[in-house]
Amino acid sequence: MTRYEHLARLLAERIEQGLYQSGERLPSVRSLSSEHGVSISTVQQAYNHLEDRGLIQPRPRSGYFVAPRRAQPPLPRLTQPVQRPVEVTHWDAIRELLDARHSPEMIALGGGTPDLTQPTIRPLWREMQRIIQHEETCLSGYDDMAGTLALRQQVARLMLDGGSALTTDDIVITSGCQEAISVAVRAICQPGDVVAVESPSFHGTMQILRGYGVKVLEVPTDSQSGISLEALEMALEQWPVKAVILVASCNNPQGFIMPPARKQALLSLARRFDIAIIEDDVYGELAFSYPRPETIKSLDHEGRVVLCSSFSKTLAPGLRVGWIVPGRWRDRVLHMKYIGTGSTAVVTQLAVAAFIRNGHYHRHLRRLRQHYQRNYEDFRCRIRSDFPCGVCVSRPQGGFLMWLELPESLDSVCISRELRAQQVQIAPGTIFSASGKYRNCLRLNYASAFNEQTARALRLIGNVIAHHLAAQAGA
Amino acid sequence: MTRYEHLARLLAERIEQGLYQSGERLPSVRSLSSEHGVSISTVQQAYNHLEDRGLIQPRPRSGYFVAPRRAQPPLPRLTQPVQRPVEVTHWDAIRELLDARHSPEMIALGGGTPDLTQPTIRPLWREMQRIIQHEETCLSGYDDMAGTLALRQQVARLMLDGGSALTTDDIVITSGCQEAISVAVRAICQPGDVVAVESPSFHGTMQILRGYGVKVLEVPTDSQSGISLEALEMALEQWPVKAVILVASCNNPQGFIMPPARKQALLSLARRFDIAIIEDDVYGELAFSYPRPETIKSLDHEGRVVLCSSFSKTLAPGLRVGWIVPGRWRDRVLHMKYIGTGSTAVVTQLAVAAFIRNGHYHRHLRRLRQHYQRNYEDFRCRIRSDFPCGVCVSRPQGGFLMWLELPESLDSVCISRELRAQQVQIAPGTIFSASGKYRNCLRLNYASAFNEQTARALRLIGNVIAHHLAAQAGA
Repeated sequence: MTRYEHLARLLAERIEQGLYQSGERLPSVRSLSSEHGVSISTVQQAYNHLEDRGLIQPRPRSGYFVAPRRAQPPLPRLTQPVQRPVEVTHWDAIRELLDARHSPEMIALGGGTPDLTQPTIRPLWREMQRIIQHEETCLSGYDDMAGTLALRQQVARLMLDGGSALTTDDIVITSGCQEAISVAVRAICQPGDVVAVESPSFHGTMQILRGYGVKVLEVPTDSQSGISLEALEMALEQWPVKAVILVASCNNPQGFIMPPARKQALLSLARRFDIAIIEDDVYGELAFSYPRPETIKSLDHEGRVVLCSSFSKTLAPGLRVGWIVPGRWRDRVLHMKYIGTGSTAVVTQLAVAAFIRNGHYHRHLRRLRQHYQRNYEDFRCRIRSDFPCGVCVSRPQGGFLMWLELPESLDSVCISRELRAQQVQIAPGTIFSASGKYRNCLRLNYASAFNEQTARALRLIGNVIAHHLAAQAGA
Repeated sequence: MTRYEHLARLLAERIEQGLYQSGERLPSVRSLSSEHGVSISTVQQAYNHLEDRGLIQPRPRSGYFVAPRRAQPPLPRLTQPVQRPVEVTHWDAIRELLDARHSPEMIALGGGTPDLTQPTIRPLWREMQRIIQHEETCLSGYDDMAGTLALRQQVARLMLDGGSALTTDDIVITSGCQEAISVAVRAICQPGDVVAVESPSFHGTMQILRGYGVKVLEVPTDSQSGISLEALEMALEQWPVKAVILVASCNNPQGFIMPPARKQALLSLARRFDIAIIEDDVYGELAFSYPRPETIKSLDHEGRVVLCSSFSKTLAPGLRVGWIVPGRWRDRVLHMKYIGTGSTAVVTQLAVAAFIRNGHYHRHLRRLRQHYQRNYEDFRCRIRSDFPCGVCVSRPQGGFLMWLELPESLDSVCISRELRAQQVQIAPGTIFSASGKYRNCLRLNYASAFNEQTARALRLIGNVIAHHLAAQAGA
């Protein structure tokens, strides 16, 4: 963290704690400079940054004042999805979302792409260069179906951070987390089966369920503690559920980390009803706090939990390197992997393995965690200052996605269409539900560094929401 | 072709044509040397080569003699599979086969790996190095679901060789041909549907059908002209077939190229019964003769044919780069691709695109075609000399796979087990049938350059077959 960032954070905390009250004058640039032993320009940068975040306001010839205090936006309520198994739809809306990510003019706050500009990723490409030069002959042939041993060794090491001690035989490399979830579903389920999911839930997973003819049972989910175990228990009593799929650590789209005790309780519930747990851990390493949260998999001693993950959110989605820990379904998972893609490209696997082995990965993760947390804070401040009252906002504990619940009467599909015309992309809430819920919700991606462009986009989103609200009130 | 290879081929042709009769003395080394204006050592090399192929025999102090003439082995008969839809099995046998390819001591004649030692592939890795250096930023993000435009442009160019004029929108890049066939099946079929296949048929495709709960109807197939249209027509009248999947050009496992008129007749049949054709063209560019055979896809003007292919047989399977021309099923294919893997790795796609664009691919193909044809001739000669009578052998017109039919009473599963204990791997015929046929058949891979080791392996296979035959006769 630079000096000015350090100072800005300190001041922000003081404002947050009420040491400087709303409307109060802040210390002069000169006095802060001598108090903290930093240059005038450092203080000025810190103040500029706080102004950008909407926390303070300058008054000509009078200095800086704490901006009128606006309450922290409330949290989204516990969701109330349709409580019966349904078939997934919404593929068209998802394709629109996926296609838009390639438009260079669009400010893309709707997709799941991570920040790709961090310099700590560069050694990855150097490792790949080296591998091509020195291991050319290893790159051509069919890979082991389970994936390259060198990478499985490194993944086993990473999994220790989440609390799991695994051997290389416990791991199967996949073409991204999407293939991991896809083979997991096909290994465990049959067409016509029912799978329980968090609600809202990642649209890609629900499309996998749809593609395999599996019905989805959406379970009420709290924006801070995750899936409602009480609602899940009732659902399990009522429906023949085969598995539950969830993103328990740094949830997509809400950003929560399920508390350890609830993870344990979920596992007990799964054991009682003899269902599988498919744990999508693709954001788990991006928790803001360190060490990372333990996985549900780490609590599992009977191979009931299938963990799916990838390097798409922590390194680069263009690599298509992920993995699955298939537990008791290893043979079926290998079969489904063979059927789907045969094996995974070798050069990308070896490059990632070398990147981890040589210590670059943990350095990169450290940087990403700070980066995403800072971006989140910037987004939160902006939303607080620029969005109308009545917008509820989730409080992510990791990852780079947040969930907004607008007043019930608003339609995020219309809003997203209006915004798209102005080159701002958001993800409308509807694609996160199989039963057409969340029309008044949306998901934002705060992965990219906060800048003038993002600030403008957020202001625009706030304005469009306010405009819709006013129109409703007038009607 | 080197001088000695040229001379050897000339002499082999003369023996083949009967200009030199069985048992007859061949010209002396000295006289051939002056007749052809080549060195003594060149003639000696040519004679050694013919001796290795079993065409001639040396007699001490007397020179070389034409080996006792053995008739060309007969062709396998028209196959007679079970004529009703069945469920595919045999996954365990296939896993054994796939796992064995990673044992370094094994002489692997059972798998589908191409020759990876040709120097003409090296520019591929240089292109990849260059791309990493100059286009690093393009490699990280999520790719277009349909694949990188640069590669789709090159694939569209390649498809012209097979007779199809396509746009880049007609092509979707996949993670190998296995993913192409997998998404094709899932786009076209529902669980419980029936799909017709050649019999024998590529085991990987049948596993895909099994994985998706689709039943297989095996259709009698001729080792030279391909699937029996008469039998297929009867099957279509009798069963609710959704699609036919076949390898019409350089078939796996038999090596035939279906004549153009039969390809056209097949398409008419498909139109009459309104079924889809999934054309696996992964070996099509490896036809011994040039230009390559036209695809069924090139005859299709209504999007009924879905072509699946990859660079796994022509470049390197470790790349996992393939493609599909989905015809009228484009939207569903994209959906299934999204569900299965999301997208394909970028760096490998761009490397292949540059390799083709810069003219390396056609040079490499030319070399491979000659290489595989030469290997095939070497294998054929060896089999003729070292295998017992009664073994029928297919006559490939391209690719690097051949099919052997042993006398009915023999069991290739036993034979392959015996051979594996001696570090020689073959593919037993059973995995090429859904209904447990072809226990007396096997597939050989002749991709690797013929050498002392391969010669020994073939001799061993011949011996084990002869031994089993003798044991049968004695019993």
